[in-house]
Amino acid sequence: MNIAIIGLGLIGGSAALAWRRAARRGSWPFGELTIAAADTRRETLDLALRLGAADRVTDSPAEAMKDADLVLCAVPVLAIESVMREFAEAAPPRSIFTDAGSVRASVIAAARRAMPERLPRYAPYHPIAGAEKAGLENAAADLFEGAAGVLTPLPETDAGAAGTVAALWECAGLRTVRMTPEAHDRVYALVSHVPHMIAFALMNTAAEAPEHGTALRAAGGGFRDTTRIAAADPRIWADIACGNRDAVLDGIDRFAQELSSLRALVAEGDAGRLERYFARAAEARRAMASLLPPKRG
Amino acid sequence: MNIAIIGLGLIGGSAALAWRRAARRGSWPFGELTIAAADTRRETLDLALRLGAADRVTDSPAEAMKDADLVLCAVPVLAIESVMREFAEAAPPRSIFTDAGSVRASVIAAARRAMPERLPRYAPYHPIAGAEKAGLENAAADLFEGAAGVLTPLPETDAGAAGTVAALWECAGLRTVRMTPEAHDRVYALVSHVPHMIAFALMNTAAEAPEHGTALRAAGGGFRDTTRIAAADPRIWADIACGNRDAVLDGIDRFAQELSSLRALVAEGDAGRLERYFARAAEARRAMASLLPPKRG
Repeated sequence: MNIAIIGLGLIGGSAALAWRRAARRGSWPFGELTIAAADTRRETLDLALRLGAADRVTDSPAEAMKDADLVLCAVPVLAIESVMREFAEAAPPRSIFTDAGSVRASVIAAARRAMPERLPRYAPYHPIAGAEKAGLENAAADLFEGAAGVLTPLPETDAGAAGTVAALWECAGLRTVRMTPEAHDRVYALVSHVPHMIAFALMNTAAEAPEHGTALRAAGGGFRDTTRIAAADPRIWADIACGNRDAVLDGIDRFAQELSSLRALVAEGDAGRLERYFARAAEARRAMASLLPPKRG
Repeated sequence: MNIAIIGLGLIGGSAALAWRRAARRGSWPFGELTIAAADTRRETLDLALRLGAADRVTDSPAEAMKDADLVLCAVPVLAIESVMREFAEAAPPRSIFTDAGSVRASVIAAARRAMPERLPRYAPYHPIAGAEKAGLENAAADLFEGAAGVLTPLPETDAGAAGTVAALWECAGLRTVRMTPEAHDRVYALVSHVPHMIAFALMNTAAEAPEHGTALRAAGGGFRDTTRIAAADPRIWADIACGNRDAVLDGIDRFAQELSSLRALVAEGDAGRLERYFARAAEARRAMASLLPPKRG
């Protein structure tokens, strides 16, 4: 199988390493694996060759795709549409297209504009993995191990393309969950996009507080974990916030409403009611603990 | 040194284990160590004896304190005042009193009411440690290793009492930071109390969302970390929210204001401005990374 990876960041790079590893271990059902990679940065391409993440590198997506059986597009969300246009021009008709974007509805709308003839071979799949350190230099073959991956086929997507994309990601260690694009966007607004907005806003609140010098030196494990994702890649998250705007706004509003109810309980100063409020959260958190992915590193 | 620990939860129990370990290793400058412990739960007292955390156990704080050189009060914040009253009645005049409460101004106000004669021997010290699993059964001798501890002496506190309390906690692995009680309460509202309120509110938002079943199964590492502290002990946190009410309300308001500015940027949909907003947070988070305590377990 000839795979072209467009965008060799943390996700594209980790996918390449994971697939190589599967091929080495004999758990790769797709015949001989060759990887062509395109990225805009020369240092990334050099590193890809040194790591053995790609057999062939280029700064031209069209060039990387020209004999691809499958194209993985792993660029920031708002940049996917232009890769789709190149795909429609340059890739052979048999090629499957998938993207690893964190938002669905707006990316699928882009596909309808950019490659309307290719929709049967388009199978969007969102690997639920990431790290606060971006880039190929932080890529790891085990990044996806044990995490969920969300397959969101279009009505037009043919079953073969969807099956191949799911099997490919499962070789990298993901377990596939299937959702509609709309459900995906609501769910990830809630469990990922809004928590990121909260972490960014909390970090900026602390950074601007008059007592911030002391505060940052005196912080403990709670602040460390609550703000970990505030170090995430700004470009990627700007694109996600724009790409899933309505669901993100709705999620922020629901959270702000909830925080405002809690604020009223604090203002009232009734320890019993606060204890019940916190117990509800603690219970929900414990109930989900076994469903969460394991910690890495 | 005869130590009495009132409240053998995660903090009181971990302190006992840490001090025992220091004594075993010869890094204990206070002579022979005996620990008397009081708790309301019989099972906790039995476990304390089995773990060797205490030499003597009782359900009566007054009984535990009767020949104490030092009393560590490690009960929820709103319960400290009644322990102070028993201390004023039952402990020898030489006894030093310290509490491990997460809030200062309201606890010091309680001390002025409950034990006005004893203020020179009262040295409040807040160890910045915790875990989402409470109770003696989760206590660990290394809980405090490498974390900060905040000493907030009163104007009345004598230097000997403050020095002894700081040295004692340093034996458990903490590094001491000194602050005024007012600065402590503002700083910990910002880096601990408000982040807990946010985690509780986010967890309840997710638990009440129409899509919550799918959401909790599909969550990734970001949600895991952002909500970890939502599993914290509800009673302890109800007391903290009430005990540091004004600073917590102020912190919630500052955060809500910041989130509302971010919401406006998302609504506007300008990826460039969002990227700059997120970059500011990411920069601040990276700048503080080396100041944060190491992860445990």
